[in-house]
Amino acid sequence: MKKLFIISILLTLLTSAGFGQRKIINLPDLPGFVTLKCDFHSHTVFSDGNVWPTVRVDEALRDGLDVLAITDHLEYTPKKNFIPVDHNAAWKICEPYAKERNLILVHGTEITRKMAPGHFNALFIEDANLIAKDSVWDNFEEAIKQGAFLLWNHPGWKSQEPDGIPKLYDIHNKMIKKGWIHGIEFFNESEYYPLVFTFCEQNNIALIGNSDVHGIISEIYTEPEYTHRPMTLVFAKERSHDSLKEAMFAGRTMVYFRDILVAKEEYALPFFDQCITVGKPYHQDDKNIYFEVSNNSDVPFFLVNGTAGAPSQLTLGANSVTRIAISKKVTSPLLYDVRNVFTGEKAVLKVELKY
Amino acid sequence: MKKLFIISILLTLLTSAGFGQRKIINLPDLPGFVTLKCDFHSHTVFSDGNVWPTVRVDEALRDGLDVLAITDHLEYTPKKNFIPVDHNAAWKICEPYAKERNLILVHGTEITRKMAPGHFNALFIEDANLIAKDSVWDNFEEAIKQGAFLLWNHPGWKSQEPDGIPKLYDIHNKMIKKGWIHGIEFFNESEYYPLVFTFCEQNNIALIGNSDVHGIISEIYTEPEYTHRPMTLVFAKERSHDSLKEAMFAGRTMVYFRDILVAKEEYALPFFDQCITVGKPYHQDDKNIYFEVSNNSDVPFFLVNGTAGAPSQLTLGANSVTRIAISKKVTSPLLYDVRNVFTGEKAVLKVELKY
Amino acid sequence: MKKLFIISILLTLLTSAGFGQRKIINLPDLPGFVTLKCDFHSHTVFSDGNVWPTVRVDEALRDGLDVLAITDHLEYTPKKNFIPVDHNAAWKICEPYAKERNLILVHGTEITRKMAPGHFNALFIEDANLIAKDSVWDNFEEAIKQGAFLLWNHPGWKSQEPDGIPKLYDIHNKMIKKGWIHGIEFFNESEYYPLVFTFCEQNNIALIGNSDVHGIISEIYTEPEYTHRPMTLVFAKERSHDSLKEAMFAGRTMVYFRDILVAKEEYALPFFDQCITVGKPYHQDDKNIYFEVSNNSDVPFFLVNGTAGAPSQLTLGANSVTRIAISKKVTSPLLYDVRNVFTGEKAVLKVELKY
Amino acid sequence: MKKLFIISILLTLLTSAGFGQRKIINLPDLPGFVTLKCDFHSHTVFSDGNVWPTVRVDEALRDGLDVLAITDHLEYTPKKNFIPVDHNAAWKICEPYAKERNLILVHGTEITRKMAPGHFNALFIEDANLIAKDSVWDNFEEAIKQGAFLLWNHPGWKSQEPDGIPKLYDIHNKMIKKGWIHGIEFFNESEYYPLVFTFCEQNNIALIGNSDVHGIISEIYTEPEYTHRPMTLVFAKERSHDSLKEAMFAGRTMVYFRDILVAKEEYALPFFDQCITVGKPYHQDDKNIYFEVSNNSDVPFFLVNGTAGAPSQLTLGANSVTRIAISKKVTSPLLYDVRNVFTGEKAVLKVELKY
Repeated sequence: MKKLFIISILLTLLTSAGFGQRKIINLPDLPGFVTLKCDFHSHTVFSDGNVWPTVRVDEALRDGLDVLAITDHLEYTPKKNFIPVDHNAAWKICEPYAKERNLILVHGTEITRKMAPGHFNALFIEDANLIAKDSVWDNFEEAIKQGAFLLWNHPGWKSQEPDGIPKLYDIHNKMIKKGWIHGIEFFNESEYYPLVFTFCEQNNIALIGNSDVHGIISEIYTEPEYTHRPMTLVFAKERSHDSLKEAMFAGRTMVYFRDILVAKEEYALPFFDQCITVGKPYHQDDKNIYFEVSNNSDVPFFLVNGTAGAPSQLTLGANSVTRIAISKKVTSPLLYDVRNVFTGEKAVLKVELKY
Repeated sequence: MKKLFIISILLTLLTSAGFGQRKIINLPDLPGFVTLKCDFHSHTVFSDGNVWPTVRVDEALRDGLDVLAITDHLEYTPKKNFIPVDHNAAWKICEPYAKERNLILVHGTEITRKMAPGHFNALFIEDANLIAKDSVWDNFEEAIKQGAFLLWNHPGWKSQEPDGIPKLYDIHNKMIKKGWIHGIEFFNESEYYPLVFTFCEQNNIALIGNSDVHGIISEIYTEPEYTHRPMTLVFAKERSHDSLKEAMFAGRTMVYFRDILVAKEEYALPFFDQCITVGKPYHQDDKNIYFEVSNNSDVPFFLVNGTAGAPSQLTLGANSVTRIAISKKVTSPLLYDVRNVFTGEKAVLKVELKY
Repeated sequence: MKKLFIISILLTLLTSAGFGQRKIINLPDLPGFVTLKCDFHSHTVFSDGNVWPTVRVDEALRDGLDVLAITDHLEYTPKKNFIPVDHNAAWKICEPYAKERNLILVHGTEITRKMAPGHFNALFIEDANLIAKDSVWDNFEEAIKQGAFLLWNHPGWKSQEPDGIPKLYDIHNKMIKKGWIHGIEFFNESEYYPLVFTFCEQNNIALIGNSDVHGIISEIYTEPEYTHRPMTLVFAKERSHDSLKEAMFAGRTMVYFRDILVAKEEYALPFFDQCITVGKPYHQDDKNIYFEVSNNSDVPFFLVNGTAGAPSQLTLGANSVTRIAISKKVTSPLLYDVRNVFTGEKAVLKVELKY
Repeated sequence: MKKLFIISILLTLLTSAGFGQRKIINLPDLPGFVTLKCDFHSHTVFSDGNVWPTVRVDEALRDGLDVLAITDHLEYTPKKNFIPVDHNAAWKICEPYAKERNLILVHGTEITRKMAPGHFNALFIEDANLIAKDSVWDNFEEAIKQGAFLLWNHPGWKSQEPDGIPKLYDIHNKMIKKGWIHGIEFFNESEYYPLVFTFCEQNNIALIGNSDVHGIISEIYTEPEYTHRPMTLVFAKERSHDSLKEAMFAGRTMVYFRDILVAKEEYALPFFDQCITVGKPYHQDDKNIYFEVSNNSDVPFFLVNGTAGAPSQLTLGANSVTRIAISKKVTSPLLYDVRNVFTGEKAVLKVELKY
């Protein structure tokens, strides 16, 4: 009796996804804030990218992002023999396209200089053509005049820093003094720069993670190696362009890539608490107490350095319930380091499981 | 700079899943009830199955089930030349094993007769060996004496009903009169029997869906054709053996297989409402109003026969947000049939999207 | 001892694919010919496509193609406000790029008219800008002057033929009389037009299958629904541009999409024979003779209407060995229809399995 | 026009795999020999495994193996309260079952002792019950009397060798002297023991790799971590039980797991040569010569330590063609180490690419 199969086929045939669909990335909100999933760095055929701008919007929607910035290079336009230069072209093409699709599009551009100062995205701008100037300082002044959030991109990129280590040069210190570096990329494409955490901590700068995509997202971030692009989680008062901007300047961000989360402890700890539920013991025998820990998020948590007597390591799988058996002899609090949640250049989140 | 990659590798190397893990099947609870995911029909080497009983428990946990019954045949034991017959063997082996792992194990057996009456599972029993009798009526009497829930299995199985259509024979009517048929399988393995809905509706019997697995779950229900085995959702007051039993006899069930849900409307409608959130309009232009519908569950919903002027078909993807553009001319309520939620032998759920 | 795991990781870390890689599509050559895998229809940002031309070359290489044509529209250039029109732009950009990568690039363009005559690709041309003329007949004359292979695209496309059925209009008959239709698409994107087989058979025209891709191949042809784009297999004397051209004009083609092959019997039968090996019987018992059939290709073959007494249906899985048990009573030749190899508008390939 | 889709569905509905199917593992034969894919170590419910014996045969066929041995423990039968001990039970059940399915089944058992000597499989035996003796030396004598191939299992298993390093104890040396160790496991389940290569080299013993499966193959060796179980490749004169046995005693084996091959150079080098074809240069420019290397096998080859001036690393992907650009300045032979083909405890295969 193959009736069932045929029904399923008919269902498939009538698939009609309305005006488009985005998957839900299962990451919790924080109390009082919504968690916006954002990528602030991407390229199109209007600089050295390989796709038409609307492809970036379609990719972002499909990936479940709330926010996208297209940031074509001001100073690097290798396709200009075929495509005349207009630094606002991608914005003009995508602004109405994104609005119809409920994606928050951020007007941006990339100031593209040798190190120092390297590459900077100017976000929340009004006119990229006006920012194109001869001197980099003039770039920055115009961007600031337009109210830009200035983001230092891939500060340890080996093409510009052969040892891979980001450095604060004079111009960076001068910018910091003026409050002109608002964010720094901790993740870029497939790289990361641990020292960025220290720069951000000491100078009250937002941690950022972006794809910097030039090719095609679905070809670069493929399973099994990747399940998602690098992204910035912004804790905003509501899902709107203005709330996003406020939260960015306030530094309420977390970066997320592979199975790694990076944030100040004040965001990392409540985020973990929103993901995890520890159940009451469901069973005991002569030796052990048994209980379950639910992780209702897409991020697994790798717990290490457990309290003496308890399991030294525990993996709380994504969207899974983990059973744990603890010896009755363990009476101290159940403390762990969360190996994949960084709360400093060399620090990881410390948590307690209260069963 | 390949540092990131190496961190990820190290994380993987330290994976340690505690005392085991089960995935979360993303299906909502109903107000006042928890949704237990159950399979009440499975076999082991103690009848004609091919695995040791603990494998059934491991499979169920991995699949995210709350409840399992192992129901080896009383009258069919083809391995008896190698394995002496003990109808309680699987229960004895698995009862402590399941308890340590927080799986609710139901003591069961399968009364295995020619049609009529065909095959029946006796669930919540005390001793399967006592139920093994010469006459099928004696089987039933002993099962009822032990407080069993009697489940009529695969009533349209072609080996017993060549036309695939379930029929109520005298013995079934006699059983119904005594209140001895408590459930009937609507789904079994990869089959379904639409007429079962009518039998259940007219006689106040619980709708049930089970795997009836003999081989290996992960080899039978493989992607892309399947994402999960057939199962029964039971709406219980709490997650316990006793609450489960109360809910089963009260008929608070829904069956779930492939992308199909089958239940009385009193369960199907609130279930849909728990899965779906319709957002406020986020945009409008001269012609259309735009809004989003979130489906926070693992089941896609296939909406058809839309109100005149609205999209005639909509697929609300699993764990996805669907954008919808509705003409401003449509002012009547937005009504749809949900093609994959059956509320009768030939009826499907009717819903309204209120934006 | 986790040493093995670490070795595997180190291996992965040192992955370095030289100057790029293409997968081997496992399809046999025919005696005396090499089988070239070809897509003769694709678009870029230079008409209404969404990618830079080099993306098309990269996609083709990754997909294992030998041959690609980029065929931007002459008469439809919706991006012209941002990109000045040059109908040879994609060719100029990709010609050296493809040469370095051993992809045979065919210079092409798409003549884009209402039905009749509809859309035609001109392939093997010298200058697309010269083909852009006011009248369609002038288009064709110039293309023919340049030595073009004229390919009638998607003749049953519903935007131009609402009933989905291709028709030979006066202009087509006139072209055929002059020998100006060299190929017709049987497959286009996800569509097919059975009647094309008859048109080709009666007029000695090559059967063609193409993707007509505008977006991104890896997002359109995704598993499980698709394992590859539609393609034309060309049986050429050697792997070269000139041999390709000779074979195309000679009509030595087969089209391949999903699990379906379409070709004249003179190509379909030897192709099947190159894929399939029937083994000697490995076992027999009182009732049956047992033998194996190897299918060393990526195409499964669905055999139906078997000789009386033999299994009526057999699926010879791709890259698999299928065991078959035949009753000893069957003495006639083992004949089957191959349901997924079309040798006519309504005909399928007939084969014999000789064990 | 959705006709195509419906055809594909109909094709799927008529799938019928004859009497079963096995996938083709794409590994070449050696000149004069056929390459048999073998697993000589597996368990069932008749010792401490979790499946009925026929499941092992079904798994082996699906995995594309030619040869299987079921080797239940003589001295460890933890299910004996439910299943009476008969060391030949699995053989009796599977022997006719395998014959009908063209799988070469090897009669075996596992002698299960503390270290030293540890665990040994006796393969090609006649009666396992006769081998069950009090003393391990009596085990061996009886096995040898039956003509057994004696295989030392997992010699570095941490439960028996806490440092993970295999050691030759007195009893092993005594056995070697008598010619009673015919094979040693280099791979077992997910482990490997490099020192085994040296033991085998010095004492003319066959290298072996096995799964030692107790659970379910398809749940243990899952993608992406695994694509296949560990196996032994045996280079036999033909595909038969007797040829297999001859080749085993002659030591014509290679072991294969993950992407790693391990064999004496006399087998490893011709095997590589059968997999790899180096093409003639297809292009050159001022600086480079371009050519392709085809790898027509399921094993990628990781080439390192390239000749000066040539790419230092090259990955020849499985079933892929790799393009290579070599500077015209390189005139010496193109030599590489194949990092994943071991020809000694610390040696890897050295090859030349002749373009």
